[in-house]
Amino acid sequence: MELEAIRYSRGCLQILNQLLLPHQSLYEEIGSVNQGGEAIRAMKVRGAPAIAIVGCLSLAVELYAKGNVEQTVSNLEKFVLDSLCYLVSARPTAVNMARAAQDLGHFVCQEAKREGTTAESLRESVISWAEAMLDKDLKDNRSIGEHGACHLLQQVGQGNVTVLTHCNTGSLATAGYGTALGVIRSLHTMGRLERVYCTETRPYNQGARLTAYELVYEQIPATLITDSMAAVAMKEKKISAVFVGADRVVANGDTANKVGTYQLAIAAKHHGIPFYVAAPSTSCDLSLEHGGQIIIEERPSQELTDINGVRVAAPAIGVWNPAFDVTPHDLITGGIVTEFGVCAPAELQAVLTQAVKKV
Amino acid sequence: MELEAIRYSRGCLQILNQLLLPHQSLYEEIGSVNQGGEAIRAMKVRGAPAIAIVGCLSLAVELYAKGNVEQTVSNLEKFVLDSLCYLVSARPTAVNMARAAQDLGHFVCQEAKREGTTAESLRESVISWAEAMLDKDLKDNRSIGEHGACHLLQQVGQGNVTVLTHCNTGSLATAGYGTALGVIRSLHTMGRLERVYCTETRPYNQGARLTAYELVYEQIPATLITDSMAAVAMKEKKISAVFVGADRVVANGDTANKVGTYQLAIAAKHHGIPFYVAAPSTSCDLSLEHGGQIIIEERPSQELTDINGVRVAAPAIGVWNPAFDVTPHDLITGGIVTEFGVCAPAELQAVLTQAVKKV
Repeated sequence: MELEAIRYSRGCLQILNQLLLPHQSLYEEIGSVNQGGEAIRAMKVRGAPAIAIVGCLSLAVELYAKGNVEQTVSNLEKFVLDSLCYLVSARPTAVNMARAAQDLGHFVCQEAKREGTTAESLRESVISWAEAMLDKDLKDNRSIGEHGACHLLQQVGQGNVTVLTHCNTGSLATAGYGTALGVIRSLHTMGRLERVYCTETRPYNQGARLTAYELVYEQIPATLITDSMAAVAMKEKKISAVFVGADRVVANGDTANKVGTYQLAIAAKHHGIPFYVAAPSTSCDLSLEHGGQIIIEERPSQELTDINGVRVAAPAIGVWNPAFDVTPHDLITGGIVTEFGVCAPAELQAVLTQAVKKV
Repeated sequence: MELEAIRYSRGCLQILNQLLLPHQSLYEEIGSVNQGGEAIRAMKVRGAPAIAIVGCLSLAVELYAKGNVEQTVSNLEKFVLDSLCYLVSARPTAVNMARAAQDLGHFVCQEAKREGTTAESLRESVISWAEAMLDKDLKDNRSIGEHGACHLLQQVGQGNVTVLTHCNTGSLATAGYGTALGVIRSLHTMGRLERVYCTETRPYNQGARLTAYELVYEQIPATLITDSMAAVAMKEKKISAVFVGADRVVANGDTANKVGTYQLAIAAKHHGIPFYVAAPSTSCDLSLEHGGQIIIEERPSQELTDINGVRVAAPAIGVWNPAFDVTPHDLITGGIVTEFGVCAPAELQAVLTQAVKKV
């Protein structure tokens, strides 16, 4: 069965506590905005799309539980806006939550003004908005998975493929299914995946802890390697393609993603192996022209020098710990996979503009 | 002061217990062949040259302590040969110890046969042989350091240089000073080193534990990064050159070294940064024509999934853990640095053959 990190049905939200993974699989009930915010703050849920979805769904379940007791439209509007403000503050660097708060805030204000809106209808439409967000992310990820898998299979013709991936881009980072890991799931479902190599993804070990967990859970043939083994794996293990996710894709196709992605792209180019970036259109930011404009977060040195609270590195050594790096568009040789299909980096802007027009 | 991993004066041998690094710096007395063998087996000493030197010196101190009590030439010869056999068995994969045992064994047999040899003179010559080995490794490393540093500085002209290195190739892996790290020491001594970036070197963390320890100890400006950050460091941090060591350099210049070296060489080539291999001529093996003939050891998966005895990776995930990889000669764009100087990979065979003739 497919791994679910977010379990939702109207009135009920459960999340898989990622702090306990990979050793313990524990679902926790989220019954209110406060509990949602706390789960985000404590990093029980992580991954930009997942944070936004859990935040909005925590609001939906609290609204559902409250019922219509002594509610007015304006009370309700204020409650929604205050809740969104609180949810954004739980993890201020998570862009998706901020964007969702802006969109849902705008929506609730419009609805509240509309003639004929009652407290009950407003409550219903906010709940539906959050549910639609969950559905859309899941649907988009399935599209990404299918587009990416079909594109690669067209390139290789017959036979099974072996894929390499980095960091965690699966059910544990999204509403479900995943982006780059979604492509790998699709290849596996089609019966065309020979094996996936996943990097441990230092310094935070998302590959070793989370991706490996998902792959074992779904019995996808998988091998864990250190980040430093990617090039020799490409040389020795018949890697057909590399698929990674993205934190942000800008107008010219340059892509910010987990540190190490740039090095993988260079190694893939050296070996003539297609390199794909898989991300929903919501991760594309056409307001920036090129990757040099993306600000890269530097993280605490302890993340690198200590593992599970135990000091590994020599005391007093200096550390550089950028969380992300930028892969220039010319290294993205396979293409960029969105819910609309696979395109060359140079085509991205046109594809997205066209898609928005259609909607 | 320069870090000493091996402290020796006639009759007295101490080693820095590397199992306790980087948290504790404890020297342990080695008074006998048994203690030497145990230290090697327990990995209190590691690094191919260091293992051979500690092994031979443990024999020297035991011979010194024994004195001439009831010794005959043939007793002594047998004791030396038995001791060497035991020392090789302590870590059978350490090629340098096996080679030293062969050479010293041959030497002792010749000496024993020679007219006029007494137990006392034989004892003296075995002790001197071991001491000469220590001196030669140290002297060769200083030459490597100077050759490598001068070559790079000639290439860059004015200004300071920033260097990137991998794994541990310093005092903790050799008789002292180090190979690639010896070049870095030389650059620092010359006042021309801006900074060194050292990779943590997964899965065994020799960079984070040992190289970082040496660099902090000698107050060399240093920054620790994950292996996955090397490419972005090359792009952002004005890296002038990459220096790595070698486990084996074969006739065409292909080089086996710690896993991750190949990936670094690809990234260096992509950025137009010279890539150097620093190794004594004893690490060169002209009996193999190319790197494809080198057998790569695969290590236990636990080395990758557990850190300091704590499980990090998801249970049941498959693992590939090659200890080394091969960097093809065309990626060694800076040159190969031996005690004889710096040469292009294509010149290595001629340089070594010429040097042997001179001796």
